[in-house]
Amino acid sequence: MLIVQKYGGTSVGSLERIKEVAKRIKKCKKDGNDIIVVVSAMSGETNKLTKMAYSLSDNLKKREMDLLLSSGERVTSALLAILLTEMGCETIAMSGRQAGIITDNLHTKARIEHIDKQHIEKELKKGSIVVVAGFQGITEIGEVSTLGRGGSDLSAVAIAGALNADLCEIYTDVDGIYTTDPRIEPRAKKLNQISYDEMLELASLGAKVLQTRSVELAKKLNVNLVTRSSFNDNVGTYITREEDIMEKPLVSGIALDKNQARVTLRGVSDKPGIAAEIFRKLAEDGVNVDMIIQNVGLDGTTNLGFTIPENELEITRNAMEEIEASESLEFDKNVVKVSVVGVGMKSHSGVACTAFDTLAEENINIEMISTSEIKVSMVISEKYAELAVRSLHDAYKLDK
Amino acid sequence: MLIVQKYGGTSVGSLERIKEVAKRIKKCKKDGNDIIVVVSAMSGETNKLTKMAYSLSDNLKKREMDLLLSSGERVTSALLAILLTEMGCETIAMSGRQAGIITDNLHTKARIEHIDKQHIEKELKKGSIVVVAGFQGITEIGEVSTLGRGGSDLSAVAIAGALNADLCEIYTDVDGIYTTDPRIEPRAKKLNQISYDEMLELASLGAKVLQTRSVELAKKLNVNLVTRSSFNDNVGTYITREEDIMEKPLVSGIALDKNQARVTLRGVSDKPGIAAEIFRKLAEDGVNVDMIIQNVGLDGTTNLGFTIPENELEITRNAMEEIEASESLEFDKNVVKVSVVGVGMKSHSGVACTAFDTLAEENINIEMISTSEIKVSMVISEKYAELAVRSLHDAYKLDK
Repeated sequence: MLIVQKYGGTSVGSLERIKEVAKRIKKCKKDGNDIIVVVSAMSGETNKLTKMAYSLSDNLKKREMDLLLSSGERVTSALLAILLTEMGCETIAMSGRQAGIITDNLHTKARIEHIDKQHIEKELKKGSIVVVAGFQGITEIGEVSTLGRGGSDLSAVAIAGALNADLCEIYTDVDGIYTTDPRIEPRAKKLNQISYDEMLELASLGAKVLQTRSVELAKKLNVNLVTRSSFNDNVGTYITREEDIMEKPLVSGIALDKNQARVTLRGVSDKPGIAAEIFRKLAEDGVNVDMIIQNVGLDGTTNLGFTIPENELEITRNAMEEIEASESLEFDKNVVKVSVVGVGMKSHSGVACTAFDTLAEENINIEMISTSEIKVSMVISEKYAELAVRSLHDAYKLDK
Repeated sequence: MLIVQKYGGTSVGSLERIKEVAKRIKKCKKDGNDIIVVVSAMSGETNKLTKMAYSLSDNLKKREMDLLLSSGERVTSALLAILLTEMGCETIAMSGRQAGIITDNLHTKARIEHIDKQHIEKELKKGSIVVVAGFQGITEIGEVSTLGRGGSDLSAVAIAGALNADLCEIYTDVDGIYTTDPRIEPRAKKLNQISYDEMLELASLGAKVLQTRSVELAKKLNVNLVTRSSFNDNVGTYITREEDIMEKPLVSGIALDKNQARVTLRGVSDKPGIAAEIFRKLAEDGVNVDMIIQNVGLDGTTNLGFTIPENELEITRNAMEEIEASESLEFDKNVVKVSVVGVGMKSHSGVACTAFDTLAEENINIEMISTSEIKVSMVISEKYAELAVRSLHDAYKLDK
């Protein structure tokens, strides 16, 4: 098999950790696999460099930030390659440039445009383990670029896609994706399998493990992902195409998103185009509107409600006041979004009903509802967040 | 003027130091100069990385060491460029690759083959300050290389040569080149000017400031060098062509080299080719033979003496035993080489005489002598080292 293994900052956070990781890689190689390793900077390094830069300037030059920040991953890749060589494994370290990772020129949050895979392929053919510095690439004109948060995961997924790897393993310090946040519901169980779409809906559960951008890219490139821990030998969670999921549980997990605020516009004039104007303005200002509810009113006006990320509340307030779309404006930061996610619900009716009944039994008022083929999301008061998660987890028997 | 400024590790050893350096660069730019800055890694960084690598392997992969070690200078160059931009100076940071520094493929001690100067020239034309990561380059096939000890000085001199800079300033934490080591003779004076050849002979005085390789390259490329301190505004020492030296003192300085060992071969058969065989063998083994003295004997044998660096004594011993060139072999580590250096002695006789007289007056026995147009070197017993330096410094009135 051709396997891409990505090790995050805590997995390579010290020389001791790098030694542990090297043993794992060597074993995987000995088992007869071809291996490409993608590494993050040692944990703390990127923060240290960022802090130094901010102490010099508030208005950082992005091009130079990329030159600065890309150094951390280069260090890890070189150290790991030196160690694997010492352990008797033919190994070559590559910077993002040497690995052929070509990006656009949006410094500090570049997108991978394509992978020049010849260099990696040549080294794999020789039998070498290839260790690639994650998070970074090079633009068409030779500038160093970095990929933003979760960038090393993107490097790994893009390389796995370009080289048609059989598997892309994302190693972190947690065991995988859980049916819900174990800090809220201790009976939460680790999932063995999950589809890309479910993973995207469950992002709030797995954000620490895998960011949305990487899952989207894996889905697009049809890369089989596994997230697992580099601190033990537990089997992780496979993230794959829905078609490849063996057991299709009705519900895979309960997600909780606390970073939500609800906006209510009362007395919006009920004429065509007014909603479009509002959401166009918000899109222009970069606000990520999530759920939208519109109640038709009786007097030619309507009430419009939607949710946004909490930290975009100020931009939203300014935007709404600017276009004077409504008589009154209400903001509520004390709301959360609870989602029931599962590909199984496509073929089963009644899943949403169970959710509504469950919350009703607990006297939790549902303020907004939004559904898709694989999820039911409900906005509720923040104070009920944990209770809602636990009772839904229980209702769908996710601990079984 | 086009000025290349190189700042060593202690000059950029902290964010505070980087701020000081930035002020100096901004002032120089304001004075109407075009500036290329070459930076070392922050002091301690390269050692830290090297130590980490050695803790993983005794048999370091040189290619990976270069990827590892090159990161330090990239960090400094990015930080300095970020700060200069914040201070209102158009600035661009460049890695060795981006600065067009092309080297051979001898990893960890590569030689600069040429400079693709277009990128730097383009940025200078725009009025930007160019900050280059020193110590590093790229091979023809795109591998990262480093230049070995004193590598950032080499980067600076090579860039100054390629771009025909008017001046190449080497900033360290000392004021310049002294007539002798001030720790031995407190009355040592800083030299205002010195020729390349004198500097090469005085290497032991200035090794901390400027390595032989850089001086040789400056001489070859006809680059005007200045070594000065980044911690004050003192005028440094100009190192230039002999023709450009205004005041030509008889003697410029007294150098002391303690890293010397003397080898004596007694009873070497006095036939043609035997000396050649000995020194060919030593050259093959990489031993740097310095002074050589041969006494013709009476009985068809001869005594051969030469000096080598102390730390090459073991290799020399093995080499000599291998070729069985002599009846007996003696090694003496307790010797030093004292040199009187000055371009002025070319046109003055009696300079050597003064040296011999001075040491004789102090009852110091001269064991070996070697002279060139601009220096007189004498091997003496180590215990007299400081006394010899002080009395020669006095004899040539270098404190005046």
